Amino acid sequence: MINGIEEKAFETIEGGVCAAQGFQANGLNCGLNKDKNKNDLGLVVSDVLCNAAAVYTTNKVKGAPLLVTKRHLTATGGRIRGFIANSKNANTCNADGVEKAEMMCQLAAQALGVDAIEIVPASTGVIGQVLPIEPIAAHIDELAAGLAAENHGKAANAIMTTDTVKKEVAVSFEVGGKVCKIGGMAKGSGMIHPNMATTLNFITTDAAISSEMLQKALSAVVKVTYNCLSVDGDTSTNDCVLLMANGLAGNTEITDEGEDFQSFQSALYFVMRSMTRMLAKDGEGATKLIECECAGAPDLDTAIIVAKSVIRSPLFKCAVFGEDANWGRILCAIGYAEADFDIDKVDVDIASAGGRIAVCRNGAGVDFSEDEAKVVLAEDEIRIDIDLHQGESSAMAWGCDLTYDYVKINGDYRT
Amino acid sequence: MINGIEEKAFETIEGGVCAAQGFQANGLNCGLNKDKNKNDLGLVVSDVLCNAAAVYTTNKVKGAPLLVTKRHLTATGGRIRGFIANSKNANTCNADGVEKAEMMCQLAAQALGVDAIEIVPASTGVIGQVLPIEPIAAHIDELAAGLAAENHGKAANAIMTTDTVKKEVAVSFEVGGKVCKIGGMAKGSGMIHPNMATTLNFITTDAAISSEMLQKALSAVVKVTYNCLSVDGDTSTNDCVLLMANGLAGNTEITDEGEDFQSFQSALYFVMRSMTRMLAKDGEGATKLIECECAGAPDLDTAIIVAKSVIRSPLFKCAVFGEDANWGRILCAIGYAEADFDIDKVDVDIASAGGRIAVCRNGAGVDFSEDEAKVVLAEDEIRIDIDLHQGESSAMAWGCDLTYDYVKINGDYRT
Repeated sequence: MINGIEEKAFETIEGGVCAAQGFQANGLNCGLNKDKNKNDLGLVVSDVLCNAAAVYTTNKVKGAPLLVTKRHLTATGGRIRGFIANSKNANTCNADGVEKAEMMCQLAAQALGVDAIEIVPASTGVIGQVLPIEPIAAHIDELAAGLAAENHGKAANAIMTTDTVKKEVAVSFEVGGKVCKIGGMAKGSGMIHPNMATTLNFITTDAAISSEMLQKALSAVVKVTYNCLSVDGDTSTNDCVLLMANGLAGNTEITDEGEDFQSFQSALYFVMRSMTRMLAKDGEGATKLIECECAGAPDLDTAIIVAKSVIRSPLFKCAVFGEDANWGRILCAIGYAEADFDIDKVDVDIASAGGRIAVCRNGAGVDFSEDEAKVVLAEDEIRIDIDLHQGESSAMAWGCDLTYDYVKINGDYRT
Repeated sequence: MINGIEEKAFETIEGGVCAAQGFQANGLNCGLNKDKNKNDLGLVVSDVLCNAAAVYTTNKVKGAPLLVTKRHLTATGGRIRGFIANSKNANTCNADGVEKAEMMCQLAAQALGVDAIEIVPASTGVIGQVLPIEPIAAHIDELAAGLAAENHGKAANAIMTTDTVKKEVAVSFEVGGKVCKIGGMAKGSGMIHPNMATTLNFITTDAAISSEMLQKALSAVVKVTYNCLSVDGDTSTNDCVLLMANGLAGNTEITDEGEDFQSFQSALYFVMRSMTRMLAKDGEGATKLIECECAGAPDLDTAIIVAKSVIRSPLFKCAVFGEDANWGRILCAIGYAEADFDIDKVDVDIASAGGRIAVCRNGAGVDFSEDEAKVVLAEDEIRIDIDLHQGESSAMAWGCDLTYDYVKINGDYRT
């Protein structure tokens, strides 16, 4: 159990954001991105109205699309049909941002023959450049005409920025004897240090569940998945996770925290945790995934704060890139984590498919073989296990190494 | 005035940590560093007992030398003769750390013919490797025998780690008609994100001032100098600023916050601010200094939090390295600063010796010439001017760009 969620293993299925029945998607290049082979505009729509829940960035600078999404979810009581999303331009810090975000919804609604208030917008890319609406207007009919369940990958491609791989996950699960599906897509590679939400994530399910219970599940799961992810410590202005449930699986609607809610939440946790891991592994310039588990904490918040402090440390991230077992930097980052605990009880191991080495016991270094450490650190998925030995709570955080390519990618991102 | 301190300009003088009368220093290579041309052991001593004040890292992992320094300052009521410092090994996270730090003091005291409690220790370097005491013991007599005012540079060299330049500053000032001097040396290049103190800094003065007023001046100045500095967001385990006053200038001892205290504090501010700037400019791998001033803040803390948030952002630091006027990242970092203010009133300029460009007004982008921006960003000292337009307080923060060399230096630091 973590944050009240039962951890279960699931077999993944194909279909991403269209794995659940009744969802269709499409994506294309409308010209925002000069690379014609890269989609920059995506649309995902449910055949019927959905209950929806969302979480947003805590950055004071909020992308105009977030403001419009919030407004539409409030106005409809969380009852929407779908969303339109673009990459290459964040539509943030522009005087006409809200107006453009509303226009995106209107264009999509017109092409679909639905009400604009039932569509929500999302944008990602450069901050502070005016979003040209013409390319979107010119391609909206083509985008809507191509909607199909099998085009989930085209939509996932449309939201990618510096991402090097598409991020899609889906699983099936049972609620009250009915088979339900849940799946999603995510984007994000840099400017990732979520706080209440992260980057762009869209999750769809055919389970029947009330908006209130959707929001409860989403908030609980976000806390121990996306909010435990950091690529560079920069909290984006456009972070948003949107979760839509269209109820087509036919289960009795989930309206309280009983067994059905647990089943739903476990599936949601699996999907979001899988996407969190994919986001960390595809961090800008990353060559290695870093997973850090903090166990033995007095409470969940302390476990999260300590684990996140380690995966955020630039010095430790560089050491992982250099395959250098400089564990003093792990202890340094544990030490400046803003939580209350006794540093002199802390144990640290470094592990991977290559083995496991104990580097610190009771806050002090222990002898280890540098040769064994090299074998452990040569792998591309590195695990740091911390035990505070002062409680029963644990949490995981995800990050990546800091490399030359991170600097290269971000030294000249706008052009 | 900033934090109650009058800002004055001073002409710098030579002499560093020995600019004030009655201080002698030396530094040599004792073998901790395999590079025989790099000093690794330094000693600074006053001819007479000093009043002393210090601030320390807030990291829970505290270097053993800090624990011993605290103990000695408490035991003597802040009356000490000098300090011994080594580089290459932080003497931190070792079971025998305190014992070794005490031995350093004993060795120095024996060579000087003083009481060991009157000497404080400092160490910087790799965390978690046992400090060999033999090289220090073998060279302590040579180190003490070479003490001289003109050897301040040898001591400054001894505390350098990945620093590429020595950091020494000194000025003279008047207190009650008497000419006083104050000077210091600092080290630090990576693991710099001070919190209550930073890295290793030693400041000496011949002004007569009580320990209580020394501590008051030091705490006020640290808040608006070293604590506004970040190279990589990693708060060191061995941060310490030590300020020693031997009273040899002959002024009437400063015991309250009158005019003499203001004169002293202004000189201290100038010295510490100058060293802060040097530390930022010599950040690991840095090619450019970034100075960020936040004005128009409702209070000093808000100004500091906003300015520090900008100079800490890895994305913005990469953009400065790439000479890319990606101001959206500045606004993003202002937006996630943990302070309470209205983002829609914010103005931002980017400036340097190459000119000044307005990039943001009232929280939204304004047109600017990319050609002019290139000229501004081609300089090696970049200034970001933020005006929140919601108060009278301002603060400055100092940082540097994030480059390939930062990654290179920290990918394999231990060897």
